[in-house]
Amino acid sequence: MLNDNHAAIAQKIGVPVEVVKVGVKSLEKPRHIRPKLLTEDLDSIVNDRTIDVILELIGGTDPAHRLVQIALENGKHVVTANKELIAKQGAKLLTLALSKSLDLHFEAAVGGGIPIVQPLKHQLAGNDVIKMMGILNGTSNYILTRMSEDRCSFETALKEAQKKGYAEADPTNDVDGIDTKYKISILSSIVFGAQIPLDEVYCEGIRNISAKDIAQAAQFGYRIKLLGIVDAIEKSKVRVRVHPALVSAQHPLASVNGVYNGVWVQGDFVGDVMFSGRGAGGNPTASAVVGDLIAVGRTMMWDSPASTIPYADTMDVESIEGLESKYYVRVLAKDRPLGLGQIATVFGKHNVSLASLDMHPDRGGDAELVFMTHVSREENVQRTLAELRTDSLVRSVQSCIRVED
Amino acid sequence: MLNDNHAAIAQKIGVPVEVVKVGVKSLEKPRHIRPKLLTEDLDSIVNDRTIDVILELIGGTDPAHRLVQIALENGKHVVTANKELIAKQGAKLLTLALSKSLDLHFEAAVGGGIPIVQPLKHQLAGNDVIKMMGILNGTSNYILTRMSEDRCSFETALKEAQKKGYAEADPTNDVDGIDTKYKISILSSIVFGAQIPLDEVYCEGIRNISAKDIAQAAQFGYRIKLLGIVDAIEKSKVRVRVHPALVSAQHPLASVNGVYNGVWVQGDFVGDVMFSGRGAGGNPTASAVVGDLIAVGRTMMWDSPASTIPYADTMDVESIEGLESKYYVRVLAKDRPLGLGQIATVFGKHNVSLASLDMHPDRGGDAELVFMTHVSREENVQRTLAELRTDSLVRSVQSCIRVED
Repeated sequence: MLNDNHAAIAQKIGVPVEVVKVGVKSLEKPRHIRPKLLTEDLDSIVNDRTIDVILELIGGTDPAHRLVQIALENGKHVVTANKELIAKQGAKLLTLALSKSLDLHFEAAVGGGIPIVQPLKHQLAGNDVIKMMGILNGTSNYILTRMSEDRCSFETALKEAQKKGYAEADPTNDVDGIDTKYKISILSSIVFGAQIPLDEVYCEGIRNISAKDIAQAAQFGYRIKLLGIVDAIEKSKVRVRVHPALVSAQHPLASVNGVYNGVWVQGDFVGDVMFSGRGAGGNPTASAVVGDLIAVGRTMMWDSPASTIPYADTMDVESIEGLESKYYVRVLAKDRPLGLGQIATVFGKHNVSLASLDMHPDRGGDAELVFMTHVSREENVQRTLAELRTDSLVRSVQSCIRVED
Repeated sequence: MLNDNHAAIAQKIGVPVEVVKVGVKSLEKPRHIRPKLLTEDLDSIVNDRTIDVILELIGGTDPAHRLVQIALENGKHVVTANKELIAKQGAKLLTLALSKSLDLHFEAAVGGGIPIVQPLKHQLAGNDVIKMMGILNGTSNYILTRMSEDRCSFETALKEAQKKGYAEADPTNDVDGIDTKYKISILSSIVFGAQIPLDEVYCEGIRNISAKDIAQAAQFGYRIKLLGIVDAIEKSKVRVRVHPALVSAQHPLASVNGVYNGVWVQGDFVGDVMFSGRGAGGNPTASAVVGDLIAVGRTMMWDSPASTIPYADTMDVESIEGLESKYYVRVLAKDRPLGLGQIATVFGKHNVSLASLDMHPDRGGDAELVFMTHVSREENVQRTLAELRTDSLVRSVQSCIRVED
C-alpha cells in the first residue's frame, strides 16, 4: 500500500516516508520486498537511530512487547495491529509513549480497516457510552453465517473456513472468543478510560451453537452472533463479556455477515451509531496501519502526539452473575403428560419468568422445548439450568443463549 | 451536553471549558440558558478577546460566513455544523484557519453524530477512494421509509414528517436534494482534496417517487433511497451526483431507515466500510460538536492544528451525461398487440439494452411496462425517454430511476 498510493499518502502526511528495514522471522521465505531491507535481527530495528517510526505487525506478546517498549524508550513512534499486546499492556505502553511525546496508535488492532479506535477517542468522546456491542471476529462470524445459510454443523463450517484460509489450523483464539475478548476490552478501555482486567471478562465461544439453534432463533426473528459487549453499569463500573447472543433481525448487527465485522455504540447524546466493514485481511489492515502512519506524520510535522491518549491501569469489572438479560433455553425432555408443567415450574421456582415456548416432538418419544424468558438474572438462570439437568424428565439442556434486543 | 457531561469532557479535553457568550437572534424567546450569557450582538462574540473557540450553529451563509471569517482572522478556533458554509466556502476557510494555526472542524455538518468527516481525513486517508454513497438527509429517508411501509404517497408521508417535526414547512432543501448535495460535496472535498463546484453536481430529489415505484422496486429486490454519490473516474476527476436510486436489498444502505443516515465508502485497500446513525437532531449534533471541541482542546494543549487539513479551491467534475448505470424505467402505454415490440425497439435504437421487464394491465385498457436495463449510458437513456414521450403508443413515461448495485 505504501508503494501503490505512495504519492497520495506522502502528500497527506506532509513528510516523505521511506521504508528503512523490514524485520522477518526467516529470510528463507520468498517475499516481494527488496532483500537488502530484510533482517532477522528485530532488535537492530528498534535500536536504529535513523528510524522514526516502528510498525509492529508481529502479533502475540513475545517478542512484540519487548520490541515496542524498546522502540518507545528509544523515542520512536509506534503503530501496531497487535490486539493482544494492547489488551494486556495498553495502559503502560500509552503512558510511556506520552511521557516521551510519542504516538502509539493501534487502529488495526480492532475491526481491521474499520475506523473505530480513533472515532471512539475523538469524535464520540463527548458521550457517556451506555452500551457497546461488536462482531469483532471475522472467523466466528463467517462460521455462524455459513451455519445459518446451509444449516450445517459448526464442525463443517469450521472446516470450510479453514479451507478458505479464514480460520487457522488451531481455531481456539477465534471460536472460543479470546480474540473478541481482546478487542472488546481495548474498545472498553478507550471509552471508559481504564484498562480492562482480562481475567474478569466473561468469555464463551461458539463451539456449542448448533444449526438447530440458529434455525429456531430465526423462527423467533433473531440471528445468532458472537458478540463482545460492554455495559456501563454505574460511574466507573462496567460489565464486559463475550458470548454468542440472539440479536433481533432488525438490529444493524444482525446483517453483518461473513467475514465482516461491526461495532454498535450507544451514547447518551449520539444515540446509536454503527460501523462495519472487513474485519481482517492484509489490505484492510494496511488501510488502518497507513491511516495511523499518516497520523504519526502529522504528529512529526506539528510535534504533538495529541492522539496518544493514555488510560488508567485497571478498573472494576462486574461479574456475569448479576447480568439481567433475556435467555433462550432449549431442553430435550421425555414426552410425559405432566412434563411441561414440571419443567416450567423449575424456571418459576428460581424466579425466571417465561415469555414464550415452542414445543415439538423429537425422536423416540422425546419432546424438544424451546423457552424464551423475560428479563432475568444470570445467576437465577444458572440455578434453573443446574436443577433442570437433574430433573427426572429432562434428558439434557441442549443450549442456553443470551438475548440482546 | 457541555453541562451534563462536563467533568468527563473536561478530563478528555485536558483544559477547562467555559461558555462565555451565547449569540441568539432574539432575546425574547425563552431558553434554558443563564440570561447574562445571551446576546443578540453576534459580532461582539467573534471580536471578544477572551474567547478562544467559536461554535457556529446558525446555518446558512449569511451572517455565518462573515462571522466565521472574522473569528478565524481574530485567532479563534471554529467548530461549525454548517454544511452550506463548508460546501461553499470550505477551501478558503480551511486555508485561512491553517495560516493562523487554528482548528476549523465540521464533523456535525455531515451525518449528524456519525463520525465520518474525521475518519475520512485520518483513518481512511491512506486509501484511494473508488466510490462513496450516502443517505445524508434524514427527512427524505424518513419519507421514503414511510412510503415503503404504508404504500402511501409522497405528499402524505411529507405531511406526516412535517407533523412530527422531521420536515420543515418549506421542505425544498431536504426533498429536492440540496441538503444532500452540500453533504456529499463536503465528503468528496475531503476525500479528493479539492472543493466541489456545486453547480456541477447533478441534483434530483424525491418528489416524483411514487409508492408504485417503491413496491415495484421491492419486487425486483431493491429499495429506493435518496443518495449522494461520488465516483472516482480517473486521476483528479470525479462525478458527484444526488438522485433517488434503486439499491439492492442486500446492500448495507438498504437497511438504513427512518431518520437515520448512512455512508458507505469503498477504498482500494479497506474494501467497503459503512457508517450509520442518527443524521440530525440536537443531541447527535451536540455529540459531533463536542467531539470537535475536544479536538480543539487537544490542539490548544499541544499547540498544533494537526486536524485542519486544507484542500484546493476547485476540481473537475464530470457531468451526468457520461454516467454508465443500470436504469429502472416505468412506462404507461396503450395495450396493443405490437405495443411492446414498438416500445422495446426505441430502447434498442438508442443502444440501451434491456435486462428484464415486468408488464401488467392498467386501468382503461392500458398496460404498465417496467423495464430494467443493462448498464447503459445516461445520455442514451435520456434520448430513449425523449423519444418514448413522443411515441404513438406511450401515454407517459412515469419514472426513470438509476440503479446502484
